[in-house]
Amino acid sequence: MKHDFNANEIVNVYSTEDDLMYNQILELKHESGSHSPSINTIRERLPKLQFKVDACFLSNPYATNLFMEYFQTEVVNTGRLREILEFYPSQMSVIAKKLGKALGVSSKNIFVGNGAIEPIQAVIHNFVKKRILVNIPTFSSYYEFVREDVQVVYNRLLPDNDFEISIDNLVEIITTNEIDSLVLINPNNPDGSYLCKDKITDLLERLRHLETIIIDESFVHFAYESDELEPISFIDMVNYFPNLVVVKSMSKDFGIAGLRAGYAVMRESRVTRLSERGYLWNVNGLAEYFFDLYTKEDFLSEYDKLRKRYIAETKDFYKELSRINGIKTHPTRANFILIELLNGMLADEFVFRMLVRYGVYTRTCSDKIGLGNKYVRVASRGKEENARIIEAFKGMLGE
Amino acid sequence: MKHDFNANEIVNVYSTEDDLMYNQILELKHESGSHSPSINTIRERLPKLQFKVDACFLSNPYATNLFMEYFQTEVVNTGRLREILEFYPSQMSVIAKKLGKALGVSSKNIFVGNGAIEPIQAVIHNFVKKRILVNIPTFSSYYEFVREDVQVVYNRLLPDNDFEISIDNLVEIITTNEIDSLVLINPNNPDGSYLCKDKITDLLERLRHLETIIIDESFVHFAYESDELEPISFIDMVNYFPNLVVVKSMSKDFGIAGLRAGYAVMRESRVTRLSERGYLWNVNGLAEYFFDLYTKEDFLSEYDKLRKRYIAETKDFYKELSRINGIKTHPTRANFILIELLNGMLADEFVFRMLVRYGVYTRTCSDKIGLGNKYVRVASRGKEENARIIEAFKGMLGE
Repeated sequence: MKHDFNANEIVNVYSTEDDLMYNQILELKHESGSHSPSINTIRERLPKLQFKVDACFLSNPYATNLFMEYFQTEVVNTGRLREILEFYPSQMSVIAKKLGKALGVSSKNIFVGNGAIEPIQAVIHNFVKKRILVNIPTFSSYYEFVREDVQVVYNRLLPDNDFEISIDNLVEIITTNEIDSLVLINPNNPDGSYLCKDKITDLLERLRHLETIIIDESFVHFAYESDELEPISFIDMVNYFPNLVVVKSMSKDFGIAGLRAGYAVMRESRVTRLSERGYLWNVNGLAEYFFDLYTKEDFLSEYDKLRKRYIAETKDFYKELSRINGIKTHPTRANFILIELLNGMLADEFVFRMLVRYGVYTRTCSDKIGLGNKYVRVASRGKEENARIIEAFKGMLGE
Repeated sequence: MKHDFNANEIVNVYSTEDDLMYNQILELKHESGSHSPSINTIRERLPKLQFKVDACFLSNPYATNLFMEYFQTEVVNTGRLREILEFYPSQMSVIAKKLGKALGVSSKNIFVGNGAIEPIQAVIHNFVKKRILVNIPTFSSYYEFVREDVQVVYNRLLPDNDFEISIDNLVEIITTNEIDSLVLINPNNPDGSYLCKDKITDLLERLRHLETIIIDESFVHFAYESDELEPISFIDMVNYFPNLVVVKSMSKDFGIAGLRAGYAVMRESRVTRLSERGYLWNVNGLAEYFFDLYTKEDFLSEYDKLRKRYIAETKDFYKELSRINGIKTHPTRANFILIELLNGMLADEFVFRMLVRYGVYTRTCSDKIGLGNKYVRVASRGKEENARIIEAFKGMLGE
């Protein structure tokens, strides 16, 4: 599934130094498999690169600001930082109790994770039988992490249809292929398509016979079904649909990817099964601090204002991007926009040239199965950074 | 394996408030299973408790001081903190490369973990066939984490022999019981007994036919075989003994348990197998910063001085403890001392009464299989804290 990069194919219209950096980035991309090299990795290897905006990184920077304010006041200024770094954090079950209060579900249904990726791995390894259906394009871990004895069946979502999932079609594929498990990212990464509550409820009702249905709600804080911009979660349905597992990363909405905080909500017997033989001290001290904060009303109320502001700015960003010639923007209910390049340039070249020339880092989707090498995913950042991204796109497209 | 606490048995010679706190701690201990409740959990539930020394916690506090100095200068003061918390850390393979340089082994042999507990879980789940031998007393995860279809065979180490392992005896048990995997913590937790390099090499040679031999070197920085106090590691032997897995926590020697940093060194094919289907972003941003620091000579040279100072103070601490009447101290090459209570008091009562009365928290070993309810494990802390621990012991024993 890895793309075969060939630097020689690229027309040489850039300076030698730019070309050098460009080739180095291609190498890095090679090494990172189906993920983008991290900002740290790029900086270390290419110290000369003027890195300005990480529009590859899907997070709300206003939420990071808020977290950092609390962290500075409550942890750094009070000397609590040493305590958090020195001592063992609480066991997972203790943190699940705190999180349970914040989420309004029983802690017995909560698996707290080292990021969302840990519960994803645990669920995929333990609660999938033989055949899993994954909608593509998608977050690659959902198919890369499956056990050797599990078959992945892909349901390709189509750009012409703005990657919308057809429930009838999905149920049919599941029946025909004797699928036992399903993954649904909602809103979906990398295209931003969104299934509304009624459709998902209908799907869950019709798929009660499946072993496991994973709904990944990592981007749900950016989605909404009404003008109030309230997110809609299925975590309180895990007892009504025992095959349901809701996965959630805190990296995106709260802008704290370095902390590695996430969770999954599932039926009690599954949490018990996983916890009996592992996952004891898997949440680090800073992530525990975050989960403490997550139970506090003042933090959450400030956060919610910033969440709504960020959604509004993302809507504006989408509008501006969609006005640029030479690209097509797909509708989104997430904090990113999937863009199709219409000028014939390959996504890899576009993305890495834009990084070298403008310091704006976007996500090439050339390694995403189900998409060709002409899609770029762009994160919405703060207002000023969004303006720089727009500028870079215009520059690259000669506007 | 859980101990059945009965508060009524305890002779009531304490104040009502002390008794109340004491009973609350017993409850907490109940909830924590075969581990001690964390300092945070105790503080939250018993805000009135005067917590002075955590001698339950096995770490070098001088190393924590050093880490905090670097962290303050390089991360907090520079504004890099936000970057570390906001952005994704590098993928595990990238961090393995850094760590490989520091350890002098190929990164292809390194599995970097979310603490040592993650590689322990991964290795126990994936590379043990049917029957694993665990020396007891031990760190409980080594038998609690085994798969349902794996049988644990215990080799009981005896206090009369200062818990020393007999190689001949071990090999015989392994042969008789058709054992395929072995766990060896060296120095061993909770007794501090140590197997020298020659004996382990002999053991590895004689057990080449085993599937997996785990050597847990989490306390090896406190051990030594000569006056130079140099630790002896087996990480460079994983290619010579393909069944060898060396596990290492950074929580103890570097005093950074909240960060969750650890690793395992094993043959390349095993790292590949684990990484192919998971463990992608399992190291958080602060742990990555630590691993960066771990490659720096100035940090390591300062660390080594503090390590040796701490060993010297631990030796003094041992001497002072061994002079107190009413307890027996077992020899140790780790940063803790296993103490047998000779006055007939139960370990649970001794430990929790000492916590309430003196604010000194030690580790009751009542839940450690292979030990009765009369053993207490005491960590060596800094010089001043060690003096407080000695004082508390003397007070409890009426000296």
